[in-house]
Amino acid sequence: MENKRNLTMLCDFYELTMANGYFKCGKGDEISYFDAFFRSVPDEGGYAIAAGLQQIIEYIKDLHFDDEDIEYLRGKGIFGEDFLSYLRGFHFTGDMWAVPEGTVIFPNEPVITVRAPAAEAQFIETYLLLMFNHQSLIATKANRIVMAAEGRSISEFGSRRAHSADAAILGARAAYIGGCTGTACTASDELYGVPATGTMAHSWVQMFDTEYEAFRTYCEIYPESATLLVDTYNVLKSGIPNAIRAFRDVLVPRGIKKCAIRLDSGDITYLSRRARKMLDDAGFDYCKIVVSNSLDEYLIRDMIRQGAKVDAFGVGERLITSMTSPVFGGVYKLSAVEDENGTVIPRIKISENVTKITNPHYKKVYRLYSNETGKAEADLITVYDEVVDTSKPLEIFDPDYTWKRKTLENITARPLLVDIFKNGELVYDVPTLEATREYCRAEVGTLWEEVLRFDNPHNYYVDLSQKLWDEKKRLINERSRRRDAK
Amino acid sequence: MENKRNLTMLCDFYELTMANGYFKCGKGDEISYFDAFFRSVPDEGGYAIAAGLQQIIEYIKDLHFDDEDIEYLRGKGIFGEDFLSYLRGFHFTGDMWAVPEGTVIFPNEPVITVRAPAAEAQFIETYLLLMFNHQSLIATKANRIVMAAEGRSISEFGSRRAHSADAAILGARAAYIGGCTGTACTASDELYGVPATGTMAHSWVQMFDTEYEAFRTYCEIYPESATLLVDTYNVLKSGIPNAIRAFRDVLVPRGIKKCAIRLDSGDITYLSRRARKMLDDAGFDYCKIVVSNSLDEYLIRDMIRQGAKVDAFGVGERLITSMTSPVFGGVYKLSAVEDENGTVIPRIKISENVTKITNPHYKKVYRLYSNETGKAEADLITVYDEVVDTSKPLEIFDPDYTWKRKTLENITARPLLVDIFKNGELVYDVPTLEATREYCRAEVGTLWEEVLRFDNPHNYYVDLSQKLWDEKKRLINERSRRRDAK
Repeated sequence: MENKRNLTMLCDFYELTMANGYFKCGKGDEISYFDAFFRSVPDEGGYAIAAGLQQIIEYIKDLHFDDEDIEYLRGKGIFGEDFLSYLRGFHFTGDMWAVPEGTVIFPNEPVITVRAPAAEAQFIETYLLLMFNHQSLIATKANRIVMAAEGRSISEFGSRRAHSADAAILGARAAYIGGCTGTACTASDELYGVPATGTMAHSWVQMFDTEYEAFRTYCEIYPESATLLVDTYNVLKSGIPNAIRAFRDVLVPRGIKKCAIRLDSGDITYLSRRARKMLDDAGFDYCKIVVSNSLDEYLIRDMIRQGAKVDAFGVGERLITSMTSPVFGGVYKLSAVEDENGTVIPRIKISENVTKITNPHYKKVYRLYSNETGKAEADLITVYDEVVDTSKPLEIFDPDYTWKRKTLENITARPLLVDIFKNGELVYDVPTLEATREYCRAEVGTLWEEVLRFDNPHNYYVDLSQKLWDEKKRLINERSRRRDAK
Repeated sequence: MENKRNLTMLCDFYELTMANGYFKCGKGDEISYFDAFFRSVPDEGGYAIAAGLQQIIEYIKDLHFDDEDIEYLRGKGIFGEDFLSYLRGFHFTGDMWAVPEGTVIFPNEPVITVRAPAAEAQFIETYLLLMFNHQSLIATKANRIVMAAEGRSISEFGSRRAHSADAAILGARAAYIGGCTGTACTASDELYGVPATGTMAHSWVQMFDTEYEAFRTYCEIYPESATLLVDTYNVLKSGIPNAIRAFRDVLVPRGIKKCAIRLDSGDITYLSRRARKMLDDAGFDYCKIVVSNSLDEYLIRDMIRQGAKVDAFGVGERLITSMTSPVFGGVYKLSAVEDENGTVIPRIKISENVTKITNPHYKKVYRLYSNETGKAEADLITVYDEVVDTSKPLEIFDPDYTWKRKTLENITARPLLVDIFKNGELVYDVPTLEATREYCRAEVGTLWEEVLRFDNPHNYYVDLSQKLWDEKKRLINERSRRRDAK
């Protein structure tokens, strides 16, 4: 499918006024560092899944202003000709580090760090955030739903309720990373290889004079993949008896022992148990039961607890919009600049709300694993030039409540941020979607059950090194002194 | 900006299996009628705003399968060569009626009706719904927020939290239809003419050694449009004093009496009142106060009640995701088919849940206005060939509780659905976005205050004509008889 878009202009207008401003006051080339991070996990969960990096890479590689974009900007009457000329040759020349897609991530740690001339680093903010926010939101929600299904497959069914075309296509991609087995969205299959499947809507059943005729015709056309939707008229009195009759008349004579029914309304738990019994009694114990109908992780958990007989779930609107928590609050903040000698000067943003004070400086992030259990114990954020010495016990502490301390022994430290761009060149091999999905599964497997819990999960430790904490404290004090000196 | 996409493949996979099925069993050309409608208003509101039609029209005009699409489908191994040949020439040949964008709409009334050969009418379901659902969701939410602001301007600021690129660009478009005055999204301005504005982020302030220097530099570069973000360090002790100093040093000498500050964190109501006083005391009573920070209609209403001094609101994530209610539940249901003589045969979908039983038949929708007040009193759904006679009193009744009856006199009946496509040809002039926005404003103006209320609004009447109700009852009874006969 044709899909040529230049998304350079998908930016908040202030990215342009600031870029023009930096350009005018001679700061356009000043090297600056920005961190993308998020502040809280959707649904008050214990962990999130990073996604969207592939699209961010494609965007950065393709960054350019078309003639019509320049013309449009000229028409706004606030940009100088020298700046517009600069935009004609605009491309990304900086460095970028990021956590791979599928990585488990936690609040307040950098998930993407950009080092670039100020005008460039600033400009990419909007698209970088929107892509990271959207796909991480859906990958995280999908993972929660997959966990709730306890091994039963989850297929993404939500295109029609997605927030427009990209949300359907890339949402299905993100849901697959998070653990879904497939999607109903054809374009996601064609573009990204997310396996797409689908059978019939109620309209198929209504198009025929009788439900049986609709079912029989479908079985004749698709004998190897007949999933019959049984709730157009009445599940127990009409849908299931007609499905059994169609299976008997078309599939049994051909020796096909593969079929399914789908329930899309009513009390699914009750209906699935009744359906199971009716199918078993008729000799169709191999017939799968697929259910859909405004499901999410909470409903699926309850259905399983109540003994619903379900083999696979189709999850639509509540996954594709992350309905119970539809905002992933990633932000992009300046953390440092370089002076003319290349020395990194940390920068901070203060807030009355202590948890909103940014972590300054060019940083690295390490995940600390217990060598005994293989489980992730904590993440540690350090200044870029620090070395984490795991040969001796490592004391970590909570950056907000510094009396909360913990000593870790026999650990391995894995750097989370990997090289993506170096001087504007892509230096990263984007893994296949399958590999990313598998990596995500392994990542979630390193978390303690307490972190995976839906409700009131354990707060995973994301701590600052002593050096970074001292630096942060120094900057906060410096800011207060300056202000009081006014 | 380059934006060439073929979105034909953005469909649920079952649209293709069904189309192939209709094709194979000889039903592909059977004329069928589908209605798009929705079942409940987001946020339990009293009304919704229709949007997305322009994009649906563009999609239908552009419908075609590329060679690579055909190749992809062939690879799935379930579609016959004759069907794939048919897809090569696939385009829309049917009729479509729809309510214009910006129309106030209510649950259970057709907002789009399609009459076309079954394979075509079925195929367009996914994209039609997703476009209608997304933009109607955002237009409706925007309208609620605009109403809450009581005349203060609302600008859409949410791109970075949107569910991907289209959600940002088209969300800004829908928000403009719903009454926002502009957006931060540059692409929405370039593509659709939604006025984009923007000034600075916290990073601008952090890039300079002092906040004052950041503000002064900005005022020098943009003296006519200086909106200074005053909460990077401390609003009252640093931000506002520095803003006042920059205005004095740069704008006052030039005689410019146009400036603004923006608050983006903290207790906005308190800070805005303190800021107003500080600005007034310093002689800047003309300085506007703009606020942003996770706002929605409820927070804005409370802020105004508590006397916040705000001239304009920037609304981000809670508008662009419709956070408190992120799903617009539009559906697309078969309502009739035509037999070989062109006779319309109504079809129904039954449900255990009475409100989910569809309204059968090819239908028309009228809005009934009181000639005295100009206010909309009720909507009436009729069979396509009925004439609404407003020359005499008209009795309407609730389709669920038929004893609830009301007689309307001295009314005008306006047909809501207008011709969009006729035999595959576009017969509709898409209005400008400005005209659509103005039409929406007028539309909302015809509603009684009771319907506009945020909480527990009055339930606007959407009634069925006697003929349509009789037809529905007949089909329900027929279905029960058939089922019991089994």
